[in-house]
Amino acid sequence: MPPLEPDDARRRFGEARVARLATVRADGRPHLVPVVFAVEGERVFTVVDAKPKTSPALQRLRNVEANPAVSLLVDHYDEDWHAIWWVRADGLARVVDSGAEREQAIDLLMRKYPQEIAPRAAFGAALLVDVAHWVGWAAIE
Amino acid sequence: MPPLEPDDARRRFGEARVARLATVRADGRPHLVPVVFAVEGERVFTVVDAKPKTSPALQRLRNVEANPAVSLLVDHYDEDWHAIWWVRADGLARVVDSGAEREQAIDLLMRKYPQEIAPRAAFGAALLVDVAHWVGWAAIE
Repeated sequence: MPPLEPDDARRRFGEARVARLATVRADGRPHLVPVVFAVEGERVFTVVDAKPKTSPALQRLRNVEANPAVSLLVDHYDEDWHAIWWVRADGLARVVDSGAEREQAIDLLMRKYPQEIAPRAAFGAALLVDVAHWVGWAAIE
Repeated sequence: MPPLEPDDARRRFGEARVARLATVRADGRPHLVPVVFAVEGERVFTVVDAKPKTSPALQRLRNVEANPAVSLLVDHYDEDWHAIWWVRADGLARVVDSGAEREQAIDLLMRKYPQEIAPRAAFGAALLVDVAHWVGWAAIE
Protein backbone atom coordinates (compact mmCIF):
# COMPACT_ATOMS: atom_id res chain seq x y z
CA MET A 1 0.00 0.00 0.00
CA PRO A 2 1.47 3.39 -0.99
CA PRO A 3 1.54 6.19 1.58
CA LEU A 4 -0.92 9.10 1.48
CA GLU A 5 0.24 12.72 1.34
CA PRO A 6 0.12 14.20 4.88
CA ASP A 7 -2.54 16.79 3.91
CA ASP A 8 -4.73 14.10 2.36
CA ALA A 9 -4.20 11.89 5.40
CA ARG A 10 -5.26 14.67 7.79
CA ARG A 11 -8.32 15.52 5.68
CA ARG A 12 -9.49 11.89 5.59
CA PHE A 13 -8.91 11.57 9.31
CA GLY A 14 -10.87 14.71 10.15
CA GLU A 15 -13.88 13.67 8.08
CA ALA A 16 -14.21 10.27 9.75
CA ARG A 17 -16.93 9.74 12.36
CA VAL A 18 -15.05 7.42 14.71
CA ALA A 19 -11.41 6.89 15.62
CA ARG A 20 -9.60 4.53 17.96
CA LEU A 21 -7.42 5.85 20.75
CA ALA A 22 -4.46 3.81 21.95
CA THR A 23 -2.75 4.73 25.21
CA VAL A 24 -0.30 2.80 27.37
CA ARG A 25 -1.05 1.61 30.90
CA ALA A 26 1.37 2.05 33.80
CA ASP A 27 2.35 -1.62 33.50
CA GLY A 28 3.28 -1.22 29.82
CA ARG A 29 0.22 -2.87 28.29
CA PRO A 30 -1.67 -1.01 25.55
CA HIS A 31 -5.24 0.23 26.08
CA LEU A 32 -7.65 0.80 23.20
CA VAL A 33 -11.06 2.51 22.96
CA PRO A 34 -13.19 3.94 20.16
CA VAL A 35 -13.75 7.70 20.34
CA VAL A 36 -15.79 10.36 18.68
CA PHE A 37 -13.56 13.32 18.00
CA ALA A 38 -12.99 16.56 16.13
CA VAL A 39 -9.86 17.88 14.42
CA GLU A 40 -8.78 21.51 14.23
CA GLY A 41 -5.35 22.23 12.78
CA GLU A 42 -2.86 19.80 14.26
CA ARG A 43 -5.01 18.96 17.29
CA VAL A 44 -7.51 16.17 17.92
CA PHE A 45 -10.22 16.86 20.52
CA THR A 46 -12.15 14.25 22.49
CA VAL A 47 -14.25 14.53 25.65
CA VAL A 48 -15.27 11.90 28.20
CA ASP A 49 -18.64 11.77 29.91
CA ALA A 50 -19.07 13.64 33.16
CA LYS A 51 -18.44 11.39 36.17
CA PRO A 52 -17.72 8.37 33.98
CA LYS A 53 -18.71 5.14 35.64
CA THR A 54 -17.06 2.97 33.03
CA SER A 55 -13.49 1.92 33.58
CA PRO A 56 -12.43 2.54 29.94
CA ALA A 57 -13.14 6.28 30.23
CA LEU A 58 -11.21 6.62 33.47
CA GLN A 59 -8.41 4.34 32.30
CA ARG A 60 -7.52 6.48 29.28
CA LEU A 61 -7.21 9.58 31.49
CA ARG A 62 -5.02 7.79 34.02
CA ASN A 63 -2.84 6.44 31.23
CA VAL A 64 -2.33 9.82 29.59
CA GLU A 65 -1.47 11.51 32.86
CA ALA A 66 1.35 8.99 33.37
CA ASN A 67 2.42 8.64 29.70
CA PRO A 68 1.18 11.28 27.23
CA ALA A 69 2.16 9.35 24.08
CA VAL A 70 -0.97 8.29 22.20
CA SER A 71 -1.91 6.96 18.78
CA LEU A 72 -5.23 7.51 17.00
CA LEU A 73 -6.43 5.48 14.01
CA VAL A 74 -9.09 6.02 11.37
CA ASP A 75 -9.63 3.25 8.86
CA HIS A 76 -11.85 2.52 5.91
CA TYR A 77 -12.49 -1.17 5.35
CA ASP A 78 -14.03 -2.43 2.14
CA GLU A 79 -14.60 -5.97 0.92
CA ASP A 80 -12.77 -4.79 -2.20
CA TRP A 81 -9.32 -4.55 -0.69
CA HIS A 82 -8.27 -2.10 -3.40
CA ALA A 83 -10.49 0.49 -1.68
CA ILE A 84 -9.02 0.13 1.81
CA TRP A 85 -7.23 3.07 3.42
CA TRP A 86 -6.22 4.16 6.90
CA VAL A 87 -4.67 7.10 8.68
CA ARG A 88 -2.81 7.19 11.95
CA ALA A 89 -2.18 10.28 14.08
CA ASP A 90 0.62 10.00 16.64
CA GLY A 91 1.14 12.66 19.24
CA LEU A 92 1.06 13.80 22.83
CA ALA A 93 -2.13 14.07 24.85
CA ARG A 94 -3.14 15.98 27.94
CA VAL A 95 -6.25 16.02 30.10
CA VAL A 96 -8.03 19.36 30.42
CA ASP A 97 -10.60 19.50 33.22
CA SER A 98 -11.83 23.05 32.72
CA GLY A 99 -11.28 26.29 30.85
CA ALA A 100 -11.32 27.55 27.28
CA GLU A 101 -9.72 24.52 25.64
CA ARG A 102 -12.31 22.20 27.17
CA GLU A 103 -15.13 24.51 26.04
CA GLN A 104 -13.64 24.49 22.54
CA ALA A 105 -13.59 20.70 22.56
CA ILE A 106 -17.26 20.54 23.56
CA ASP A 107 -18.21 23.11 20.91
CA LEU A 108 -16.38 21.21 18.17
CA LEU A 109 -17.96 17.90 19.15
CA MET A 110 -21.49 19.32 19.38
CA ARG A 111 -21.04 20.81 15.90
CA LYS A 112 -19.72 17.60 14.38
CA TYR A 113 -22.27 15.32 16.08
CA PRO A 114 -25.53 17.32 16.26
CA GLN A 115 -27.43 14.18 17.28
CA GLU A 116 -25.59 14.34 20.61
CA ILE A 117 -28.19 16.33 22.50
CA ALA A 118 -26.57 16.01 25.93
CA PRO A 119 -26.47 19.21 27.98
CA ARG A 120 -23.04 20.70 28.52
CA ALA A 121 -23.09 19.37 32.10
CA ALA A 122 -22.97 15.84 30.66
CA PHE A 123 -19.41 16.42 29.43
CA GLY A 124 -16.42 15.66 31.60
CA ALA A 125 -12.73 16.19 30.98
CA ALA A 126 -11.40 16.88 27.53
CA LEU A 127 -8.47 14.94 26.13
CA LEU A 128 -6.47 17.00 23.62
CA VAL A 129 -3.90 15.44 21.34
CA ASP A 130 -1.22 17.53 19.64
CA VAL A 131 -0.43 15.48 16.57
CA ALA A 132 3.23 15.18 15.59
CA HIS A 133 2.71 12.89 12.58
CA TRP A 134 -0.19 12.08 10.25
CA VAL A 135 0.62 8.83 8.47
CA GLY A 136 -1.74 7.24 5.97
CA TRP A 137 -1.77 4.38 3.54
CA ALA A 138 -4.16 3.56 0.72
CA ALA A 139 -4.44 0.74 -1.73
CA ILE A 140 -3.96 1.77 -5.35
CA GLU A 141 -7.38 2.70 -6.70
CA MET B 1 -23.01 1.96 28.22
CA PRO B 2 -23.68 -1.42 29.83
CA PRO B 3 -21.15 -4.24 29.37
CA LEU B 4 -21.73 -7.14 27.00
CA GLU B 5 -21.63 -10.75 28.15
CA PRO B 6 -18.19 -12.22 27.31
CA ASP B 7 -19.67 -14.83 24.92
CA ASP B 8 -21.63 -12.13 23.09
CA ALA B 9 -18.55 -9.93 22.99
CA ARG B 10 -16.42 -12.70 21.47
CA ARG B 11 -19.10 -13.56 18.90
CA ARG B 12 -19.44 -9.93 17.76
CA PHE B 13 -15.67 -9.60 17.59
CA GLY B 14 -15.23 -12.75 15.51
CA GLU B 15 -17.87 -11.71 12.97
CA ALA B 16 -16.30 -8.30 12.31
CA ARG B 17 -14.28 -7.77 9.12
CA VAL B 18 -11.61 -5.46 10.50
CA ALA B 19 -9.99 -4.91 13.89
CA ARG B 20 -7.33 -2.54 15.18
CA LEU B 21 -4.16 -3.87 16.77
CA ALA B 22 -2.39 -1.83 19.44
CA THR B 23 1.13 -2.73 20.45
CA VAL B 24 3.74 -0.81 22.44
CA ARG B 25 7.06 0.38 20.98
CA ALA B 26 10.36 -0.08 22.78
CA ASP B 27 10.28 3.60 23.79
CA GLY B 28 6.86 3.21 25.46
CA ARG B 29 4.75 4.84 22.74
CA PRO B 30 1.69 2.97 21.44
CA HIS B 31 1.49 1.74 17.84
CA LEU B 32 -1.81 1.17 16.06
CA VAL B 33 -2.73 -0.52 12.77
CA PRO B 34 -5.90 -1.97 11.23
CA VAL B 35 -5.83 -5.73 10.65
CA VAL B 36 -7.86 -8.39 8.98
CA PHE B 37 -8.08 -11.35 11.30
CA ALA B 38 -9.81 -14.59 12.24
CA VAL B 39 -10.86 -15.92 15.64
CA GLU B 40 -10.82 -19.53 16.74
CA GLY B 41 -11.55 -20.25 20.38
CA GLU B 42 -9.59 -17.82 22.52
CA ARG B 43 -7.06 -17.00 19.81
CA VAL B 44 -6.94 -14.19 17.24
CA PHE B 45 -4.94 -14.89 14.07
CA THR B 46 -3.41 -12.28 11.78
CA VAL B 47 -0.73 -12.56 9.09
CA VAL B 48 1.55 -9.93 7.59
CA ASP B 49 2.56 -9.81 3.94
CA ALA B 50 5.65 -11.69 2.87
CA LYS B 51 8.72 -9.43 2.88
CA PRO B 52 6.71 -6.42 4.03
CA LYS B 53 8.11 -3.19 2.70
CA THR B 54 5.89 -1.01 4.86
CA SER B 55 7.20 0.04 8.24
CA PRO B 56 3.84 -0.58 10.02
CA ALA B 57 3.98 -4.31 9.29
CA LEU B 58 7.53 -4.67 10.52
CA GLN B 59 6.95 -2.37 13.49
CA ARG B 60 4.17 -4.52 14.97
CA LEU B 61 6.40 -7.61 14.83
CA ARG B 62 9.31 -5.82 16.47
CA ASN B 63 7.02 -4.47 19.17
CA VAL B 64 5.51 -7.84 19.99
CA GLU B 65 8.89 -9.53 20.18
CA ALA B 66 9.95 -7.01 22.84
CA ASN B 67 6.57 -6.66 24.62
CA PRO B 68 3.91 -9.30 23.90
CA ALA B 69 1.01 -7.37 25.49
CA VAL B 70 -1.45 -6.30 22.79
CA SER B 71 -4.99 -4.98 22.57
CA LEU B 72 -7.40 -5.54 19.66
CA LEU B 73 -10.56 -3.52 19.08
CA VAL B 74 -13.69 -4.04 17.00
CA ASP B 75 -16.26 -1.28 16.99
CA HIS B 76 -19.60 -0.56 15.39
CA TYR B 77 -20.28 3.14 14.89
CA ASP B 78 -23.75 4.40 14.01
CA GLU B 79 -25.06 7.93 13.70
CA ASP B 80 -27.75 6.75 16.12
CA TRP B 81 -25.57 6.51 19.19
CA HIS B 82 -28.01 4.05 20.75
CA ALA B 83 -26.78 1.46 18.24
CA ILE B 84 -23.05 1.82 18.98
CA TRP B 85 -21.10 -1.11 20.41
CA TRP B 86 -17.49 -2.19 20.70
CA VAL B 87 -15.44 -5.13 21.87
CA ARG B 88 -11.85 -5.21 23.04
CA ALA B 89 -9.65 -8.31 23.23
CA ASP B 90 -6.59 -8.01 25.47
CA GLY B 91 -3.92 -10.68 25.46
CA LEU B 92 -0.43 -11.82 24.66
CA ALA B 93 0.91 -12.09 21.13
CA ARG B 94 3.73 -13.98 19.52
CA VAL B 95 5.23 -14.04 16.04
CA VAL B 96 5.19 -17.38 14.23
CA ASP B 97 7.42 -17.53 11.16
CA SER B 98 6.69 -21.07 10.06
CA GLY B 99 4.97 -24.33 10.98
CA ALA B 100 1.46 -25.58 11.64
CA GLU B 101 0.17 -22.54 13.53
CA ARG B 102 1.14 -20.22 10.69
CA GLU B 103 -0.51 -22.55 8.15
CA GLN B 104 -3.65 -22.53 10.32
CA ALA B 105 -3.63 -18.73 10.37
CA ILE B 106 -3.38 -18.57 6.56
CA ASP B 107 -6.16 -21.15 6.17
CA LEU B 108 -8.48 -19.25 8.51
CA LEU B 109 -7.84 -15.93 6.77
CA MET B 110 -8.32 -17.36 3.26
CA ARG B 111 -11.64 -18.86 4.39
CA LYS B 112 -12.86 -15.64 6.01
CA TYR B 113 -11.70 -13.37 3.16
CA PRO B 114 -12.20 -15.35 -0.07
CA GLN B 115 -11.55 -12.22 -2.13
CA GLU B 116 -7.93 -12.40 -0.99
CA ILE B 117 -6.62 -14.36 -3.93
CA ALA B 118 -2.93 -14.05 -3.03
CA PRO B 119 -0.90 -17.25 -3.34
CA ARG B 120 0.34 -18.74 -0.07
CA ALA B 121 3.82 -17.40 -0.86
CA ALA B 122 2.42 -13.87 -0.45
CA PHE B 123 1.93 -14.45 3.29
CA GLY B 124 4.65 -13.68 5.78
CA ALA B 125 4.81 -14.21 9.51
CA ALA B 126 1.67 -14.91 11.52
CA LEU B 127 0.90 -12.96 14.66
CA LEU B 128 -1.15 -15.02 17.12
CA VAL B 129 -2.88 -13.47 20.10
CA ASP B 130 -4.00 -15.56 23.05
CA VAL B 131 -6.85 -13.52 24.45
CA ALA B 132 -7.09 -13.20 28.22
CA HIS B 133 -10.15 -10.91 28.32
CA TRP B 134 -13.00 -10.11 25.95
CA VAL B 135 -14.57 -6.85 27.10
CA GLY B 136 -17.49 -5.26 25.29
CA TRP B 137 -19.90 -2.38 25.74
CA ALA B 138 -23.13 -1.60 23.96
CA ALA B 139 -25.60 1.22 24.18
CA ILE B 140 -29.04 0.16 25.38
CA GLU B 141 -31.05 -0.78 22.28
